[in-house]
Amino acid sequence: MTTTASADAATGLSATGLFTDHYELTMLDSLVGAGRAQVPAVFEAHARQLPQTVGFGVVWGVGRLAELLERFRFDEADIAALEADRVVSDATLEFLRDFRFSGEIDAYADGSLWFAHSPLLTVRASLGEGLLIETLALSVLNHGCAVATHAAAMRQGAGDATLIEMGSRRVHEEAAVQGAVAAWVGGFDLTSNLAARRRYGVPSGGTASHAFSLAFEDEAAAFDAQLDTHGAATTLLVDTFNTTQGIEAAVDAARRAGADGPGAVRIDSGEALEAAAQARAQLDALGATATRIVVSGDLRLDDLRRATSQGAPIDAFGIGTHIAMAPSVGIVYKLAAVGDPEPVSDSVSDSELSTPVPLRQVAKSVPGRLDHPGEKFAYRRVRSGVAEAEVVASRPIDAPDHQPLQVAAFRDRRAAVVADASAARDRRIGQQQALGTPAAPGAALPTIVV
Amino acid sequence: MTTTASADAATGLSATGLFTDHYELTMLDSLVGAGRAQVPAVFEAHARQLPQTVGFGVVWGVGRLAELLERFRFDEADIAALEADRVVSDATLEFLRDFRFSGEIDAYADGSLWFAHSPLLTVRASLGEGLLIETLALSVLNHGCAVATHAAAMRQGAGDATLIEMGSRRVHEEAAVQGAVAAWVGGFDLTSNLAARRRYGVPSGGTASHAFSLAFEDEAAAFDAQLDTHGAATTLLVDTFNTTQGIEAAVDAARRAGADGPGAVRIDSGEALEAAAQARAQLDALGATATRIVVSGDLRLDDLRRATSQGAPIDAFGIGTHIAMAPSVGIVYKLAAVGDPEPVSDSVSDSELSTPVPLRQVAKSVPGRLDHPGEKFAYRRVRSGVAEAEVVASRPIDAPDHQPLQVAAFRDRRAAVVADASAARDRRIGQQQALGTPAAPGAALPTIVV
Repeated sequence: MTTTASADAATGLSATGLFTDHYELTMLDSLVGAGRAQVPAVFEAHARQLPQTVGFGVVWGVGRLAELLERFRFDEADIAALEADRVVSDATLEFLRDFRFSGEIDAYADGSLWFAHSPLLTVRASLGEGLLIETLALSVLNHGCAVATHAAAMRQGAGDATLIEMGSRRVHEEAAVQGAVAAWVGGFDLTSNLAARRRYGVPSGGTASHAFSLAFEDEAAAFDAQLDTHGAATTLLVDTFNTTQGIEAAVDAARRAGADGPGAVRIDSGEALEAAAQARAQLDALGATATRIVVSGDLRLDDLRRATSQGAPIDAFGIGTHIAMAPSVGIVYKLAAVGDPEPVSDSVSDSELSTPVPLRQVAKSVPGRLDHPGEKFAYRRVRSGVAEAEVVASRPIDAPDHQPLQVAAFRDRRAAVVADASAARDRRIGQQQALGTPAAPGAALPTIVV
Repeated sequence: MTTTASADAATGLSATGLFTDHYELTMLDSLVGAGRAQVPAVFEAHARQLPQTVGFGVVWGVGRLAELLERFRFDEADIAALEADRVVSDATLEFLRDFRFSGEIDAYADGSLWFAHSPLLTVRASLGEGLLIETLALSVLNHGCAVATHAAAMRQGAGDATLIEMGSRRVHEEAAVQGAVAAWVGGFDLTSNLAARRRYGVPSGGTASHAFSLAFEDEAAAFDAQLDTHGAATTLLVDTFNTTQGIEAAVDAARRAGADGPGAVRIDSGEALEAAAQARAQLDALGATATRIVVSGDLRLDDLRRATSQGAPIDAFGIGTHIAMAPSVGIVYKLAAVGDPEPVSDSVSDSELSTPVPLRQVAKSVPGRLDHPGEKFAYRRVRSGVAEAEVVASRPIDAPDHQPLQVAAFRDRRAAVVADASAARDRRIGQQQALGTPAAPGAALPTIVV
């Protein structure tokens, strides 16, 4: 197993500036024209509500975002293309030509739990810089947090069963890698994705597809070949032709290899719960009582919950489409505060930016929706080791039962955090333990805004 | 606008071998152990059914896959990691060390329409090679085809309105680029994604977010700044504070800039259909009859259909989450035929592989499901310029009304096609015209298997 990789290894890209919506440049252009690009501002990323699946969100993406922001620049060819297409004015091209993100970012650490209105990112930067990074910040966070959060829901739904992520084939190959990592951070045990193993040290596994059984003269020959290579603890896929005959052939093959049965059998088609019960009965009748049962095939969160509530004899679930294509968590990126409303000179220096200035607190006005203006500070109120509330405050709170939730993620033009999947997974486990047992699936900590 | 980019520019990665499920290596390991890795085989990618949205699928990903397969190899560090983790045997490591995909691939060209059981890819390769590329092939095709297909459904649902893809922020940043391209191929008019413009020449656009209005002392100042930079044809976002007042302010600002109204107003919140009707009435009453109306905000296919059927005065839809996270199209990759069932020597050479050999036709057995074994040849039966059927044949058909659908996509270790979004879009338009007008939304050509 290898150690945490950098985003460089992950994407190989030298410049990440074009992972950006056109309107960020259009707005920047107008801000430059109006002399407001350098006005100090605070932006915030949060979700207005949690998905109704597990009661909390899980962060994955902050470390990767910080690494990508180090390389958030526009290379010469990018600038030439923007110039040729006249996307922005010459003044804005100059702004972009040597652009490096120089703002400060505080963020929930990877693996943190989060709730509605938790300030996942707080970005202190000029208006122009803060706007420019919006799209990339949201791409990275929305994808990572959606998968990590749905993984936590599936972890809760699957009881004690092993969860294997195998959704790479359903999504873009780079999304597949990050999805595999996010699923592990959120609660899965294994992935099928080898790049996630290589780059992030996620445990990977897998045995065989139907093609493997079809590639031999018969199923018995395929099973013999697999057992010969991988030993009797391997998982044999038993539903290529007929599941009942496949299980019999699997046990026979394991016996030829000197075991009572294979390590596990996998069933990849049909109604998982019913098939598992039949397979368990058959395996037990054959004396293969230690052989585990793995099911897969378009399984959703509700399937896991039903299997668990019915006590289905399923030892492991293989999950593909419905983890890799996890539902959106709807993280948004909002201007929370902005400096002097009068136009200021473009020559404001970094040192002036870091001088405290009174910022105007702002928020979009939406009837019936609570959007809180201004910069926020986030704490988890924990008493006697039990998390009671998410406190989102308009000023810092210094109290022993208020655990600060944000860490310095970007400082001095450099990432201040790394994408460490193992540390994130441990953090998630620790924070989840502090939640205690929720009253009901989907029950969330209250968010208290003060 | 720039021209088609290579996959190198797109991902920057030198080696793509680890975009692969663990089980492909496990199977390869057993095939190497059993002396069957070099047995000739045919694999096929297809979908068993179409999504019930538009009546056909749209291909995007074949050109990109071919380019990625040129670099499907395992670099030294990959091999070292696999070795350290003892993922595969030494013999299999040797197989992987100098691996280059040497098979032949025929495929539906990018932009082609496809139907249930259309052989999107036909891969003629050794068992080992054909298995190894399964995951990458499916990642690329499932993602690209899902978005392109849903884009076609949205194109059909939106009537004459302009469709703007703006979903980058909801998905992994590289998936965002491919999603933007696929959406354009499938029927969208514009994207927000600047990398899609840069790499593939997709037209991009966008104007402003709520943050822009909040960044000024008031909405009027923001509108003035935007009109000053981008001219009176720009689109003003009018719902930051109050939509009715926002429209009034937008028209006032356009008048200050010497126009009857802005080019368009955008409404990004609330019930789109109702909001558009109110906005149209208000704009007309203000004399801004030429001002167009753009709506956005979590819009789905059904929202487009409803707007169209009700004749809502919407000139453009901005679509985010529900195009970038398009539903899966469930493309699978199956072993269709395999050579001599007796173990053969690993020393079979390329020339022997290309010698025609009688292959055994295979398919997984599933009660109630039709999986057709054997290599297929695909044609669209077109008579008098009208497409009548998708013909999937077990032998080549030479008939003037049978248009061959597959092209040579990979030959002699090189991509034989390129990822050309513009050509794909044109192909999609041409093939869709040949379909004529379907009897009902979602009505598909029959697939005839002969």
